[in-house]
Amino acid sequence: MIYIGIDVGGMSIKAGVVDNQGEILFKHSCPTGVERGYGAVIRDIAELGISAVEKSGHTIAEVKAIGIGIPGIMDQRTGIVPFCTNLAWHDVPIIEEMKKYTSVPVYVDNDATVAGLAESVAGVSAGCENSVFVTLGTGVGGGVVIGGKVFSGSHGVASEIGHMVTVAGGEMCTCGNRGCWERYASATALIREGRKLCQARPDTALLKAVEGDPQAITAKHVIDLAKAGDPDCAALFDRYVYYLCIGLRNLVSLYDPEVIVLGGGVSHAGAFLLDAVREKLPGYVFFKTMPFARVELAQLTNDAGIIGAAMLGR
Amino acid sequence: MIYIGIDVGGMSIKAGVVDNQGEILFKHSCPTGVERGYGAVIRDIAELGISAVEKSGHTIAEVKAIGIGIPGIMDQRTGIVPFCTNLAWHDVPIIEEMKKYTSVPVYVDNDATVAGLAESVAGVSAGCENSVFVTLGTGVGGGVVIGGKVFSGSHGVASEIGHMVTVAGGEMCTCGNRGCWERYASATALIREGRKLCQARPDTALLKAVEGDPQAITAKHVIDLAKAGDPDCAALFDRYVYYLCIGLRNLVSLYDPEVIVLGGGVSHAGAFLLDAVREKLPGYVFFKTMPFARVELAQLTNDAGIIGAAMLGR
Repeated sequence: MIYIGIDVGGMSIKAGVVDNQGEILFKHSCPTGVERGYGAVIRDIAELGISAVEKSGHTIAEVKAIGIGIPGIMDQRTGIVPFCTNLAWHDVPIIEEMKKYTSVPVYVDNDATVAGLAESVAGVSAGCENSVFVTLGTGVGGGVVIGGKVFSGSHGVASEIGHMVTVAGGEMCTCGNRGCWERYASATALIREGRKLCQARPDTALLKAVEGDPQAITAKHVIDLAKAGDPDCAALFDRYVYYLCIGLRNLVSLYDPEVIVLGGGVSHAGAFLLDAVREKLPGYVFFKTMPFARVELAQLTNDAGIIGAAMLGR
Repeated sequence: MIYIGIDVGGMSIKAGVVDNQGEILFKHSCPTGVERGYGAVIRDIAELGISAVEKSGHTIAEVKAIGIGIPGIMDQRTGIVPFCTNLAWHDVPIIEEMKKYTSVPVYVDNDATVAGLAESVAGVSAGCENSVFVTLGTGVGGGVVIGGKVFSGSHGVASEIGHMVTVAGGEMCTCGNRGCWERYASATALIREGRKLCQARPDTALLKAVEGDPQAITAKHVIDLAKAGDPDCAALFDRYVYYLCIGLRNLVSLYDPEVIVLGGGVSHAGAFLLDAVREKLPGYVFFKTMPFARVELAQLTNDAGIIGAAMLGR
């Protein structure tokens, strides 16, 4: 049996044909064209998936399931996507729409959830019963695998780990509350703190690196300067790792997984991030003498969306 | 088949014979006598359980399993209790010790976990696939049920919900970190804030209620005065509910259960607490228009430990 995995982003739709072990046999992509509305986008999703099968040399009769990863949430009971900000979707009946084009079973889940599943099938957490995938990007997303399966909870929102409050009364979040973890552990947090640094210290290396324009600061600027030993950015990064570890501690206390996988833009800092987390986290976990989750970097990166989506139907 | 359920506390050991539906057929108890060391305590646990079967009119051949709830944590892989502060246990081989007295399979888990399981079998969360039991006592404990089974994670610490950090850098916790939820949502938090209130406002009703002795303040004093409309205690209780809801929001974001059950001493405030939580929580959950966990009060109270322990082996 083969599976179709589709990774839907704000810019592009990627579709792949994936085997039972999570290996991609063929993949291709097309622009999303969000502005056309969900009907046209979902038609493209279906057509791109079906044509991927044909181009891979297989037939649709061999396809066990189609999986779709979306940058939003999915209500599994109704088959409707209540929210998907990057696609400008609101209450979109994705399962019903997909049925117009195919009779193959369709599964839909959040993109971070899907990436976590991919890592647990064919990546760094392969073979683990319990793992948590954490995307450190514009926000902080999560993919929780419990007992080898995606855990979405009773209403499909179980992996909203970026919106756990770690600093009650802290920074205002896009969700309307204060102090969510993603306000402190995302790339956005590094940028915000970088801008504050430039305002407080106009002679800092970070402001020189962006030629005096704080709006140009990226997480990579901060991380690269921290790596190079700039004391201001090193202190900023150290503070970032502290808040990251506070949330990781909570994941250990609540999910107690075998592995926590770090993905997303900030994880491209590589060993520099991983070493810092591995050094700090043991000081924050509750039971100091008990074993706890090992922390790893994501392995599959760009293909995780296709592989994980495909594995939803396995 | 019948089950033996044993609830081990710092003061007493309670043992019961429980049927498959979680109903207690017979129960009795004895003092714990912690100071005698774990060998004597575990012998009493075994003997009390076995004699409960005899007194219930059943035979040991009918017993499918013995379950034990302890006020500490259990390492399921080794059969050893690494920590159990109230029993002064450290690295106690409880499974090995129990084998000296019985060949019936023995299961051991944390008392809050066990109480959560009891509620999910025979209490307010009966029939729910996913539920979280929260004990609001001296600390804050948790019992997590996922897919109808106790969820303990990969290293047995998955339900340490009281030690999720909700106020990074906040109140010092017994665990060595700062800002754990239990520093804000336990009975201890109400007492601490009550004492602060008495220091700041010597004319407050709370200080009169304890005849001028802040050391005599209990959570019940604060709650009763808040109920009676005392503005100082009402404000204090309101703040308590705020912090309680921040943690409940995190449970919704991470576990997304059908039901959150409130137990422990503070839950004896009953509808006064429940109504306040039900009013405040919707303002804090992430997805405002999605359904989320209903919050309920524990039903089984004193018998939850026996019933839940018994159900560990079901």
